[in-house]
Amino acid sequence: MTFSFKGKKPSRRAFLTGAAATGAGLATAASAKDPAIAVQPWMQELGDGVDVAPYGLPSEYEKDVKRRSVEWLTADPVSSINFTPLHDLDGIITPNGLCFERHHGGVARVDPAMHRLMIHGLVDKPLVFTMEDLKRFPRENHVYFLECAANSGMEWRGAQLNGCQFTHGMIHNVMYTGVPLRLLLEEAGVKPSGKWLLVEGADAAAMTRSIPMEKALDDCLVAFKMNGEALRAEQGYPVRLVVPGWEGNMWIKWLRRIEVGDQPWHHREETSKYTDLLEDGVARRFTWEMDAKSVITNPSPQAPITHGPGPTVLTGVAWSGRGTIPRVDVTIDGGMNWHQARMDGPSLMKSMHRFYYEFDWDGSSLLLQSRAHDSTGYVQPTKEALRAVRGVNSIYHNNGIQTWAVDADGRAENVEIS
Amino acid sequence: MTFSFKGKKPSRRAFLTGAAATGAGLATAASAKDPAIAVQPWMQELGDGVDVAPYGLPSEYEKDVKRRSVEWLTADPVSSINFTPLHDLDGIITPNGLCFERHHGGVARVDPAMHRLMIHGLVDKPLVFTMEDLKRFPRENHVYFLECAANSGMEWRGAQLNGCQFTHGMIHNVMYTGVPLRLLLEEAGVKPSGKWLLVEGADAAAMTRSIPMEKALDDCLVAFKMNGEALRAEQGYPVRLVVPGWEGNMWIKWLRRIEVGDQPWHHREETSKYTDLLEDGVARRFTWEMDAKSVITNPSPQAPITHGPGPTVLTGVAWSGRGTIPRVDVTIDGGMNWHQARMDGPSLMKSMHRFYYEFDWDGSSLLLQSRAHDSTGYVQPTKEALRAVRGVNSIYHNNGIQTWAVDADGRAENVEIS
Repeated sequence: MTFSFKGKKPSRRAFLTGAAATGAGLATAASAKDPAIAVQPWMQELGDGVDVAPYGLPSEYEKDVKRRSVEWLTADPVSSINFTPLHDLDGIITPNGLCFERHHGGVARVDPAMHRLMIHGLVDKPLVFTMEDLKRFPRENHVYFLECAANSGMEWRGAQLNGCQFTHGMIHNVMYTGVPLRLLLEEAGVKPSGKWLLVEGADAAAMTRSIPMEKALDDCLVAFKMNGEALRAEQGYPVRLVVPGWEGNMWIKWLRRIEVGDQPWHHREETSKYTDLLEDGVARRFTWEMDAKSVITNPSPQAPITHGPGPTVLTGVAWSGRGTIPRVDVTIDGGMNWHQARMDGPSLMKSMHRFYYEFDWDGSSLLLQSRAHDSTGYVQPTKEALRAVRGVNSIYHNNGIQTWAVDADGRAENVEIS
Repeated sequence: MTFSFKGKKPSRRAFLTGAAATGAGLATAASAKDPAIAVQPWMQELGDGVDVAPYGLPSEYEKDVKRRSVEWLTADPVSSINFTPLHDLDGIITPNGLCFERHHGGVARVDPAMHRLMIHGLVDKPLVFTMEDLKRFPRENHVYFLECAANSGMEWRGAQLNGCQFTHGMIHNVMYTGVPLRLLLEEAGVKPSGKWLLVEGADAAAMTRSIPMEKALDDCLVAFKMNGEALRAEQGYPVRLVVPGWEGNMWIKWLRRIEVGDQPWHHREETSKYTDLLEDGVARRFTWEMDAKSVITNPSPQAPITHGPGPTVLTGVAWSGRGTIPRVDVTIDGGMNWHQARMDGPSLMKSMHRFYYEFDWDGSSLLLQSRAHDSTGYVQPTKEALRAVRGVNSIYHNNGIQTWAVDADGRAENVEIS
């Protein structure tokens, strides 16, 4: 199909005019050959009703919508990563079956009846909770993004991975149900000297991180549900820590132990891993917060423009560990002109936000970028600006602006421009 | 485990005192026999990392969390119902795999490449859209509940079904992504005489309903995603109509045709079905809106209290087709005393809301009820009040207050009290 307004300045008016032209064209075609005229097979026969699945799955036509790993990225499958297909999704909720997951000792398969959560150390009363005990405390529900500190990490040294699933897919955004960690700590009675927590998972890696008491008492949750149902095994079933806005490795899965101490523990995941090695050899530590970031999910390398010139929907996601995203700017010409994107859907604290920019594509090549502004006034930087401060030794905390180049055929690829 | 404050007046202070006592008791037990002391098998061996599913599924320990049907309720499995397990869920999002579904001619398995949406009738330009065409229009994202008009329908004549999955599970609540129907109608150009739409599905039942133009131009969506991913086949893949706040049968699945006319069509689903037969033999028609309603999901017949007296979390859901739910009242003594529940999670228009009431259970029998107030000031009525107006011929639009009786062992059942 073709559009008659190629080269017009993008505007809402032009968009609607263009779409009208489209529609009229299609309607004419329909009178002769369009399959809509035919009565399709699924209208002629009773559908499948006997074996509607007790737990439903996606349509067979959606089989390519899936988490993907990158074989060379991790040394062993028991310490691997599976990326969220951001280019296939819309809105702000990540469905549980497609949530990014990273495990350090394989996925533990924990029997909830045998699982316990222990709180000990600098407390008045050491406590051990069964899952049923936890469910007797008041619960809260919040939508939060979880982003791995290493998300976009391969891009520090230039465009590496061709697709937002791989460059930005170490993130998901779900509604958690859980008990505020504060309530459990109040039960145990933290001694005045208790300033830090060690949180530990029940997986074979015994993942541990140190968390400052201030954060623990602020908004951390001990969560047992995601998007309404029980946590998935890959997400720490039966119980995980939720550390809103902070890097994903701190959201300890299969949470079994919380020790209260007076200083951090300096364990592996906060010394040799998950620290930011600067140009001068000094490593920044405890860089917990995930700064404002955004990415255009469509068009993108895995989701080219397939419809030719004319009305085109550009969309993407943005988030900040420090608040909400009131604004995202978008450019289609590599930064010569910026346009304020349309934000849509709920704007929630430390949650993913959805943005759109509708424009008339004239069929020429494009350079797409998005730039998030968070509620603190912080603006997502360029990768160049980040490198000027931090060099290129780091793997973590790359929240730089991403560029996709789109060619005249609608194909997109990961590029860097300066 | 036992609690030391049986019989105390419920209060937050008592709750916390009680829970502290619990914890201390458990912690003592842990030093000798509690399995938390043991290093569990999943901590000693590397977990499953090789075959993390590209599309993930729930834990094997959650196999009983599923949609259920009621065999005697429908004449044939191609015209059946599968109910959401509300008692197993929390928060406000229904995961796609557990969403209530009702089909009238089986579940159509539609090839999206062959699917078309047609708009014709009293329009300037009849239009036919491919799925790709639809995705070139501006999209919106909204969380809406979908409730079948027949939800709780069996309860008109008294307590029938033992479990909120069956009494109230013909509902789900997801985030939709779609194009406002208004934009598609503007493309086609509705003639001044166009006052009604006929919307038709591509299933073998060719489900049709008449929708007034005012609603179509207000907040209806032509949706292709739910909770971020493509619609499920049972929910109308690849495209369905979303009619916020209105009864579920109008949310035509596998949407293929929209005809614009000057009056309603009086088809089967709005004459012999989905009308409200009153005591005098007159049937109310076009009773589209779903009024404010609530149900306690825990405790409930499928989710008894298993932990004995002491701190207990009561929770449930509430919704209104006319707005939000600012308030829910709860009683545990059959209405002698009412308590304002704690609302938690996002409060969105025409979306499910979550409420909690934490209390100290003294171990005696309980009569649990909840009563929703919506943002228009409307208060959920008793079943008695509804019957006084509408009699007991109706199957539809029962939004009366539900009662669960809980016995001293924590078992709950569906009862009626007057």
